[in-house]
Amino acid sequence: VIEVRPIRPGEGKALWEMLHALAASHNFLDNFQPTPEGLEAALFGPGSIVGCLLAECDGELAGCAFWHRSFSTFRGCEVMYLEDLSVLPAFQKRGVGRKLLEAVARLAVEKGYPSIFWVMMDWNEAGRALYSSVGAEIEPGVCYCRIHGEALMRLAA
Amino acid sequence: VIEVRPIRPGEGKALWEMLHALAASHNFLDNFQPTPEGLEAALFGPGSIVGCLLAECDGELAGCAFWHRSFSTFRGCEVMYLEDLSVLPAFQKRGVGRKLLEAVARLAVEKGYPSIFWVMMDWNEAGRALYSSVGAEIEPGVCYCRIHGEALMRLAA
Repeated sequence: VIEVRPIRPGEGKALWEMLHALAASHNFLDNFQPTPEGLEAALFGPGSIVGCLLAECDGELAGCAFWHRSFSTFRGCEVMYLEDLSVLPAFQKRGVGRKLLEAVARLAVEKGYPSIFWVMMDWNEAGRALYSSVGAEIEPGVCYCRIHGEALMRLAA
Repeated sequence: VIEVRPIRPGEGKALWEMLHALAASHNFLDNFQPTPEGLEAALFGPGSIVGCLLAECDGELAGCAFWHRSFSTFRGCEVMYLEDLSVLPAFQKRGVGRKLLEAVARLAVEKGYPSIFWVMMDWNEAGRALYSSVGAEIEPGVCYCRIHGEALMRLAA
């Protein structure tokens, strides 16, 4: 049985463990910086802009969807940004991702967001199949750009 | 003389006019939905997550940078999302974009954001040249995904 529900206060540690396991499965541990306390504060602290849904398979944490408030200049209103939709390797191919995506969509409609957007790597065939199947528009030919560390400091100087 | 400064309350109309001109120059007017009042509320209303810097060339509005608060699960903290960096056609190739980007970087550092991220179309050579010149990382092979309208309603049902 797959159940999707909002994360509850006090579950920052469980979320951290799942994100850590996901980072390990993607060989991203070198860049993995969150702490349980930091996640808890981001989700439940004052002025929070992020939310998280957890998926459980038979009571075990199986995946999560992390979203935050965003804004579209062309719509002139807030939209939802889906920062992360992940299913632990052991629970993949059971429909967990789709259940999470459905719950994210319900939340977006509840909150009055007209649109959800996210980015996906080109090679992510599982993602493409899921997102296409629900009617998402997938625009290729995009670059993800980022400036941080020394380069950010130099530009700001 | 190029001057970059934060937008001020009451300038929602001027911003709207510039965004409208930019949308026209990109043939995006069909999807252009903001209103001056909506922009004003998004920027200066309670719980605002967005900010905007305006560039002026000799006192005339020449471009804008629109950003909003964002969150990275791998960093476990807030980062800055650059939603839009635009220069009106008549003011291009004068260094306005770079001045805006520098001001965005200063703001990010002031606010304690460790990173700024954004997306760019693959074919945007002017953007690529500017962003590379300041040390941004540009990752190709990304898709921009979006669900809205009927598809969002069906998924949420």
